Amino acid sequence: METVEAERIAWLRVPAEESLPEEVRALFGKFREKTGLVPNVARAFALLPEHFLRWFRYYDFLMRSEGYLSRKEREMIAVVVSAENRCEYCLASHSAYLREVSGDETLPEVLAANYRRAPLSPRERALLDFAVKVTGPSWTLGEEDLVPLRAAGLCDEAILEAAQVAAMFNFTNRLANALGWKPNPEYYRLGRGGP
Amino acid sequence: METVEAERIAWLRVPAEESLPEEVRALFGKFREKTGLVPNVARAFALLPEHFLRWFRYYDFLMRSEGYLSRKEREMIAVVVSAENRCEYCLASHSAYLREVSGDETLPEVLAANYRRAPLSPRERALLDFAVKVTGPSWTLGEEDLVPLRAAGLCDEAILEAAQVAAMFNFTNRLANALGWKPNPEYYRLGRGGP
Repeated sequence: METVEAERIAWLRVPAEESLPEEVRALFGKFREKTGLVPNVARAFALLPEHFLRWFRYYDFLMRSEGYLSRKEREMIAVVVSAENRCEYCLASHSAYLREVSGDETLPEVLAANYRRAPLSPRERALLDFAVKVTGPSWTLGEEDLVPLRAAGLCDEAILEAAQVAAMFNFTNRLANALGWKPNPEYYRLGRGGP
Repeated sequence: METVEAERIAWLRVPAEESLPEEVRALFGKFREKTGLVPNVARAFALLPEHFLRWFRYYDFLMRSEGYLSRKEREMIAVVVSAENRCEYCLASHSAYLREVSGDETLPEVLAANYRRAPLSPRERALLDFAVKVTGPSWTLGEEDLVPLRAAGLCDEAILEAAQVAAMFNFTNRLANALGWKPNPEYYRLGRGGP
């Protein structure tokens, strides 16, 4: 008899959902309710449930709370950093989120190819230039690298938020790249208008 | 009259301690009690107090809770990743923590220079090789890069923990490098036997 093997979503063991602590299962339920899926990152990361929850409480607040940067600006940084780090997982998922928050179906692909060719406001360009510098050899940065951000009107709190978002994707990209996390295939369709 | 300017610890504004929310001030009190100082990272990051607290609850659990890796192994990864990213702040602070948890005053400096020359167990060597790969072009990693970790006896949970620690210092190194965070000078003396 032929058996169809489910596609692997990680190189490490993925725990069975029913084996997970109540708080993790409740969060998975909320994901399903809101988006119709449980992100594979959550399923894979939940191998260490307490680590996953503590990471998520920070990550979710950073990306989705009322902030100094717009949701769109934060998702643009996510896509551009993930392109620098060639992260299959985060490019798929955050391109989808960016399509949803911006209503723009083309922008994520242009950002992933070369954000310098995208139609950007001066503030967006300053944020993305900064995110790319933070992602590269960050030890070469100097105080002068904050000047374009300030010239674009960003206050110190906004700069700290931007640095965190750029640094966060340098964290998640590395987990996904190092542990073979595969994006849910649905991400490639989310936020696209059908025919 | 001559005025002495306090050394700047960050390129962004550092909030006055008395302006911070109660929970942050309580945490600063705990730092002082345990180590005699408030880490400059905490003072600088607290410009966005809720971000700082959520990051810290994850970071502190990752580094200090009972884990699959020893405290020493986690601090070794911290030092080696911070050396790759040439992070003044994290090299100073985590060299101090590593001296404290290992009782070895020399090890952090050898790791920072070239961990391949340090006296390492096969498990430590596998962990540090992996951390360096995660820090570099992480998109070139494949499932075969997990083989040396498994050969050294690390289970999937331990590998996920190691990946998080390596990724975490790719996060904190970038914040410190991009925002000009200076380590407390005390770190250079902590964990060294006096004459």
